[in-house]
Amino acid sequence: MRAAIMRNRKLVVDTMPEPKAGPGEVIVKTLACGICGSDLHALKFADKLVEGARRSGGAFVMDLNRDIVMGHEFCAEVVDYGPGAQKRFKPGTRVCAMPILIKPTGVETVGYSNENPGGYAEYMRLTEALLLEVPNGLSTERAALTEPMAVGYHAVQKARLEKDDAPLVIGCGPVGLSVIASLKLKGIHPIVAADFSPRRRELALKMGADVVIDPKEKSPYESWKSMAAYSDPSKAPPQMPWMPGPALRPAVVFECVGVPGVIDTIMASTQPGARLVVVGVCMEEDHIQPMNGINKELNIQFVLGYSAEEFTATLGNLAEGRVNGDPLITGKVGVEGVPQAFVDLGSPEKHAKILVEPWHS
Amino acid sequence: MRAAIMRNRKLVVDTMPEPKAGPGEVIVKTLACGICGSDLHALKFADKLVEGARRSGGAFVMDLNRDIVMGHEFCAEVVDYGPGAQKRFKPGTRVCAMPILIKPTGVETVGYSNENPGGYAEYMRLTEALLLEVPNGLSTERAALTEPMAVGYHAVQKARLEKDDAPLVIGCGPVGLSVIASLKLKGIHPIVAADFSPRRRELALKMGADVVIDPKEKSPYESWKSMAAYSDPSKAPPQMPWMPGPALRPAVVFECVGVPGVIDTIMASTQPGARLVVVGVCMEEDHIQPMNGINKELNIQFVLGYSAEEFTATLGNLAEGRVNGDPLITGKVGVEGVPQAFVDLGSPEKHAKILVEPWHS
Repeated sequence: MRAAIMRNRKLVVDTMPEPKAGPGEVIVKTLACGICGSDLHALKFADKLVEGARRSGGAFVMDLNRDIVMGHEFCAEVVDYGPGAQKRFKPGTRVCAMPILIKPTGVETVGYSNENPGGYAEYMRLTEALLLEVPNGLSTERAALTEPMAVGYHAVQKARLEKDDAPLVIGCGPVGLSVIASLKLKGIHPIVAADFSPRRRELALKMGADVVIDPKEKSPYESWKSMAAYSDPSKAPPQMPWMPGPALRPAVVFECVGVPGVIDTIMASTQPGARLVVVGVCMEEDHIQPMNGINKELNIQFVLGYSAEEFTATLGNLAEGRVNGDPLITGKVGVEGVPQAFVDLGSPEKHAKILVEPWHS
Repeated sequence: MRAAIMRNRKLVVDTMPEPKAGPGEVIVKTLACGICGSDLHALKFADKLVEGARRSGGAFVMDLNRDIVMGHEFCAEVVDYGPGAQKRFKPGTRVCAMPILIKPTGVETVGYSNENPGGYAEYMRLTEALLLEVPNGLSTERAALTEPMAVGYHAVQKARLEKDDAPLVIGCGPVGLSVIASLKLKGIHPIVAADFSPRRRELALKMGADVVIDPKEKSPYESWKSMAAYSDPSKAPPQMPWMPGPALRPAVVFECVGVPGVIDTIMASTQPGARLVVVGVCMEEDHIQPMNGINKELNIQFVLGYSAEEFTATLGNLAEGRVNGDPLITGKVGVEGVPQAFVDLGSPEKHAKILVEPWHS
């Protein structure tokens, strides 16, 4: 089959053997697979990713000297089953799944693995028990957004939001846009979002942001403050005695950039008592000033992925139209176009999410 | 009056004018005042402390070119009142108070201020409304522990502990010991605590630790793991699918050291899903590997101080014998002995908490 392959830390297009289905597994044809910012990071920081995964005992441990096919945001079509499968879905059924395989030896990832090619190839091997049928009528493109939209959904769940909380989204790439959609779904307003790119700010408004800020023009934190007063000041809780100024609504800042220095800037700039939710994936060492955290009693919640329930809920939200991810999709390519798509995604003005459709050239 | 003074970033003993009580204020005679690790830090990193405070808009903004009398862990005796005071307590009444003054212009600190001398001097100026009478029978030495014990109490409150949580205390200086006492008060066991110093480990056991670890001998994190299995494994919650191994009880790690690199080490070494509570006060820049936080979905809660309710509750806990801070007190000095006490506190084998009694020489 044709595939865009990470080989010797570079992306090449080549032909490779089709995967075979093991016990309880299914072979699917990739219909559409989004390119994730994490894949761009993974290509650039492959060694750091593997080293970090090894150190923290997580998944994502790969041999970079062997071929890897990335791609974990997919909608696919059932083709064939391995031994012992229940064959719950007829061939041709469209499915989504979390990008993992349940093996007798444990959990393996799809897309960050030497064994399990991801969605930048024509075919994948998946675990049958994890398949979710795409509800009738939901387009393949929209179904392929389940994974990235589940990331924002999970981040918003982990934020433990209460009705007075006032969110600020730093960075409006696909992760930030997904967070914005989930905040809108949860009915938490105003949603203030910041990005240097005019195109990204426009997408943020389409996804549900109430106010967008260009940090070159205006501080996102000052802008947030002007939006975050209690409408009834008598409802404001008492402040810690050494905290200055009147109480504002609790700040919940979503870090959706993932480069060194952003966490530090947020810690230096946000309100006392703020909660940071780190959704951006920074694969390099970072620096912080703990005194900013201490003086303001900040909380930092790092998040990753989503639960099976959150993934399923997200597919349902897309199917029922409660969440609209359409503005995210800014381009489509075949397998041959993947290397150029990785380059194009470097410019925020051009693209947010490019879908790979391995069946067309 | 005699006072140990921070002057030109050094500690000297000199005579200075007694403070005067403003409206609603009271002059008290310092009976006992603990030397806090933060004061040692503040002397060493005075410029960083002031710069950080300025940046984060917190209190602790001082002019380092003028005299400062530190000391914020005090028990004192009412001497005289300023104009407009309610005179709730007779002269001679023993009192504790949070080390702050409520002024018409806002809140000021006692002890990190050019205007309000702290407890390393014979007399202090306090806000009458904040005074708490020392309950009959509680010794002055024990009452002086209210402030440091409130710090641990607050940290444990902010940890949002639930019954399955299994704590690990990194660092058994006064802050760590205070956290241990508050964990014991809350009935959360086993309490695992780590410190390089044999003396500190001994104190940790006296304060309520169930197990103490010498990190030179054994990893605190591995030791914690051996203690943190669910007694009934069927009660363990489901893991995120990519997390390795069987679920252990949730880890709550209290960082009570406050030097660069400790947060990073905890992030690298602790369990998936762990919550870090940063009680140590690191005044320098620090570095972290965000990937450790992301891969394990860690949460970091920075804490500072305590609320008025927590301070009052702590005085009550000491008075009722629910908390015993006695092991903390390892020495007493007069004002003249403060500079040497600052030196002695550098060695964990010698001391935990030295009380200053400015009325004796």
